[in-house]
Amino acid sequence: MEKSQLAVKVGLEIRRLRRLKNRSQEDFADDCGVHRTSMGAIERGERVITIDTAKRVVSTLGITLGEFFTGIGE
Amino acid sequence: MEKSQLAVKVGLEIRRLRRLKNRSQEDFADDCGVHRTSMGAIERGERVITIDTAKRVVSTLGITLGEFFTGIGE
Repeated sequence: MEKSQLAVKVGLEIRRLRRLKNRSQEDFADDCGVHRTSMGAIERGERVITIDTAKRVVSTLGITLGEFFTGIGE
Repeated sequence: MEKSQLAVKVGLEIRRLRRLKNRSQEDFADDCGVHRTSMGAIERGERVITIDTAKRVVSTLGITLGEFFTGIGE
């Protein structure tokens, strides 16, 4: 299946921001309430997440959905 | 099932902006590439949409995801 371009962009930004916070993918996934294997798929843009999951993830990164999407020009 | 608070907020804002544009739910759904019955569920906050669907809907409304979520304080 072709990847969603938005999912790829979102995944890369989640990974970038997570690394800026020096968080491991596993610990970060736990804090987001996302399965560890799912977080890998999300960061690789292989999973198109819901707005609820997006909110949980960006909240854990300390920003709002508005800030997150504005930050990636979406 | 309990509704997602975010989905309710998103649905109300989609409905508000669609009506501001004097669009029927049916025509608007067609333009978004969303099934007509799905658009009803989305506007009532009964469906938690993906970020891809959110992008299609807000693009059809003429705004970005960043603008949309900032507008509803999310």
